[in-house]
Amino acid sequence: LTTQSPHPQGTPPDPSPPSLGTVVIVGVGLIGGSIGCGLRARGACHEVIGVVSAPGNDPVAVGAVDRLLPLKEAVALADLLVFSTPVGAMAELAKAASPHLKDGAVITDTGSVKGHVAQALGPIFGCRYVAGHPIAGKEHNGVHAADPDLYQGKAAILTPDPNADVDAIVSVTAMWHWLQAHTITMDALTHDRVFACVSHLPHIAAYALMGAVCDASTDNLDPAAFAAGGLRDFTRVASASPVMWRDICLTNPDAIVEMLDLYTTQLNQVRDAITTGDGQTLLDLFTLAVGVRERMVP
Amino acid sequence: LTTQSPHPQGTPPDPSPPSLGTVVIVGVGLIGGSIGCGLRARGACHEVIGVVSAPGNDPVAVGAVDRLLPLKEAVALADLLVFSTPVGAMAELAKAASPHLKDGAVITDTGSVKGHVAQALGPIFGCRYVAGHPIAGKEHNGVHAADPDLYQGKAAILTPDPNADVDAIVSVTAMWHWLQAHTITMDALTHDRVFACVSHLPHIAAYALMGAVCDASTDNLDPAAFAAGGLRDFTRVASASPVMWRDICLTNPDAIVEMLDLYTTQLNQVRDAITTGDGQTLLDLFTLAVGVRERMVP
Repeated sequence: LTTQSPHPQGTPPDPSPPSLGTVVIVGVGLIGGSIGCGLRARGACHEVIGVVSAPGNDPVAVGAVDRLLPLKEAVALADLLVFSTPVGAMAELAKAASPHLKDGAVITDTGSVKGHVAQALGPIFGCRYVAGHPIAGKEHNGVHAADPDLYQGKAAILTPDPNADVDAIVSVTAMWHWLQAHTITMDALTHDRVFACVSHLPHIAAYALMGAVCDASTDNLDPAAFAAGGLRDFTRVASASPVMWRDICLTNPDAIVEMLDLYTTQLNQVRDAITTGDGQTLLDLFTLAVGVRERMVP
Repeated sequence: LTTQSPHPQGTPPDPSPPSLGTVVIVGVGLIGGSIGCGLRARGACHEVIGVVSAPGNDPVAVGAVDRLLPLKEAVALADLLVFSTPVGAMAELAKAASPHLKDGAVITDTGSVKGHVAQALGPIFGCRYVAGHPIAGKEHNGVHAADPDLYQGKAAILTPDPNADVDAIVSVTAMWHWLQAHTITMDALTHDRVFACVSHLPHIAAYALMGAVCDASTDNLDPAAFAAGGLRDFTRVASASPVMWRDICLTNPDAIVEMLDLYTTQLNQVRDAITTGDGQTLLDLFTLAVGVRERMVP
């Protein structure tokens, strides 16, 4: 698929990045809210303005933004415009924002899928757009879970188009450095395949496990009452936002289906070995898995 | 399958259980070793004697047992005999131990599967045998991970045969109460189906996920380098002992295959919805999953 070898070390945070001017965050939940309060806490910008779909003053109250404005008014003030809504909502908002952009504004996003988002936002914003994806999260969603240090020590993946303006890349990189994240650059297709594997598949696997627990439950059998640590850890990600994950599934279908097929093939190998009493195959599969895990979490 | 409704609350620990006399633990790894050092730390018994398959004095050095003896000599001294080996090794050891048992000895085990173990050990030990399964574990295996407080506040499931002697049930219950665990009684079939769902399936799912990550890896793509928190949590259980999990798969095949089939049905529903772009089905499946998770981890 690609010959580019990603470098997980990436670019370490610049300790004194340039000021970001006025930052506008469209979609102030956990991810956008953590950007907002992280930038505000570090004096990284003149002002953070939030744009939210639902009324309510929570983003200001929790310190995620200085104030809220309607999309058009906010966009007109933005030096740096950050889209942090679920992936499926970005294209329409980008179209609505585009006519009101200030000259020289830089646009980025935080979507978990990059190919689809770049196809939607790239033609609208051209060389001023630099796609991004911070590798950080929490069990809980929403602006009340926002944390100024959410990105500290974490990676932010950038997947800029080859034609992106250098100053736009510098500006988006500076935002992540202010938040004490390091940046890693890769192409969008590689990103989407890597994260289909290490993020999208595990989330689907956890959701499906909860579905199986539900299907196994009857009036006389309540497996969930006996959920031990393993299942709780395993399914922490199954508390994630259904809307966000629906959008991820719909916007990264090819890579996710590829990974799902690798996964069900593995599960079927285990099933076959169990039904035939093939202990050696089970031992081989499980031993390989432990090795992968140890390499991943040294 | 059963009309018995298990009670997760179970019997709370008796604060002053009777002394256990001489306790012999066959298989001194994480589970057996934690029983040993927990009983020793609490003055629950006269002595803890360990029986191990491999030479080495580690169980004594870490305080899990007072001393090691060969199986026959140890068994002859046991008031309470605890089998804590992988499930697949128990039947042979039980046969070897049986002729040397002291009169009145009580026998239990800690296997994660109860139907198969009861079929193997029940005919050997008769009404003196009370099957057990503590619901506790750790990421790391082996006696060096043993912890005297591993069972504190946790549940130990007992699945005694209806003909088991009352004093044998009292003795095994006392062992878990000394370790500050509460006991829950259910039938073996219910146990095996519940734990196929909440423990065996999640372990297999985590192992299979590691296998899929491995299958997706190429010279140019190393997804494991980008493993974020979700994948790490999800796969914590994939560091468990392959031998132990091979044995669990081989000794609880019917319930595990039933749960695997529920799981792959769920995964296939997600796959179908992705390939047909059916966002509503994805949203419904994920929303249901979040609900199950919330009910499980309030």
